[in-house]
Amino acid sequence: MAYVLHLDASPRGERSHSRRMTRSFVEQWKQAHLGDTVIYRDIGRNPVPHITETWIAAAFTPPEQCTPELWEALRVSDELVDELVDEFLAADIYVMGVPMYNWTVSSGFKAYIDNIVRINRTWAYIPEENPEFPYKPLVHGKKLFVISARGDGGFAPGGRNAQRDFLTPYLKEAFSMLGVTDITFVDVENDEYGGQKLAESIASAQARIAHLVTV
Amino acid sequence: MAYVLHLDASPRGERSHSRRMTRSFVEQWKQAHLGDTVIYRDIGRNPVPHITETWIAAAFTPPEQCTPELWEALRVSDELVDELVDEFLAADIYVMGVPMYNWTVSSGFKAYIDNIVRINRTWAYIPEENPEFPYKPLVHGKKLFVISARGDGGFAPGGRNAQRDFLTPYLKEAFSMLGVTDITFVDVENDEYGGQKLAESIASAQARIAHLVTV
Repeated sequence: MAYVLHLDASPRGERSHSRRMTRSFVEQWKQAHLGDTVIYRDIGRNPVPHITETWIAAAFTPPEQCTPELWEALRVSDELVDELVDEFLAADIYVMGVPMYNWTVSSGFKAYIDNIVRINRTWAYIPEENPEFPYKPLVHGKKLFVISARGDGGFAPGGRNAQRDFLTPYLKEAFSMLGVTDITFVDVENDEYGGQKLAESIASAQARIAHLVTV
Repeated sequence: MAYVLHLDASPRGERSHSRRMTRSFVEQWKQAHLGDTVIYRDIGRNPVPHITETWIAAAFTPPEQCTPELWEALRVSDELVDELVDEFLAADIYVMGVPMYNWTVSSGFKAYIDNIVRINRTWAYIPEENPEFPYKPLVHGKKLFVISARGDGGFAPGGRNAQRDFLTPYLKEAFSMLGVTDITFVDVENDEYGGQKLAESIASAQARIAHLVTV
């Protein structure tokens, strides 16, 4: 029995491919893993705010140095952040629908990353252990499935847009800093072309999902 | 006589290095280019919202296909976006303070990019001209200075964090899609180490700025 965090980042509703694909993934996952519990977070429809100066102060000020005023400001701004971090830590499996906007994640998904990259909760700063890379991951044993939708195609290595994929390598780097290194990408490409090109990409993503949920 | 768009993306105030550096850049620029006009945009303190489903409909629906309801929704959501795009197009020189958060731009700066990458205003979709890359830049003759602040160091090619710099190559790609290809980066590194390391990085950035404003 595992906890599955199902997250959608697309601001679109029925027109969103990533949203339709994560739903299909999670439905099939539940069939294959009876007893698993699914938590749903919709940051596309209920966006996570950009981090603020208060957030930064909250994250990096040791509790004993907080003034009552700062403490009060932090408490308010912390509530959603703590909830996001708690549910991220509680889950074993992540299924995230992440559209590509302008060659990388949308600002909405970046806001999610900026919020869950939280010192002493998802990573720790320990320069004495590794001065070359002082960020120690605190999140272990998770499995992440990223279902990414793109307007264009050809982002795979060797493809005509390969050097423009700032989503796949970026997410690998950002999540591995937290300790999430088991990441599988399923891409739906060619949304802006539509027709046969899009249909083939959707069919191929569906086939991969049907396989992935049973592994 | 040129228009300079001075933009700050840091949510921090006095503690922000990028903010202090863009201010210093613009002050020196004005001394060296009497008669230039500076427009200021503070997306750190007054964040640009994430793009929404309505925004996407606004950008991609031809005006003649708009219903009165959609038109009204678009008009409201369009006001800030149009203002952002207008001032982006009006400027000749951009001086942007862009902190690196978690190896790339903050969600706030990504929201700015997602807003100004606007079909038929900053780029056009013309597959018949170039089927391999159908995005035609519409913004020409601009000069962009990015002043980027980072907690860590070693992001230059060959450095220990070189493969983690998803800010510099990403901004080159995103802005060049619009036609902004003359981009100069000034980096302030080592904020999280402080002390001598940070002081040296600031001094080196200041020296570069003093040179750049006179070129």
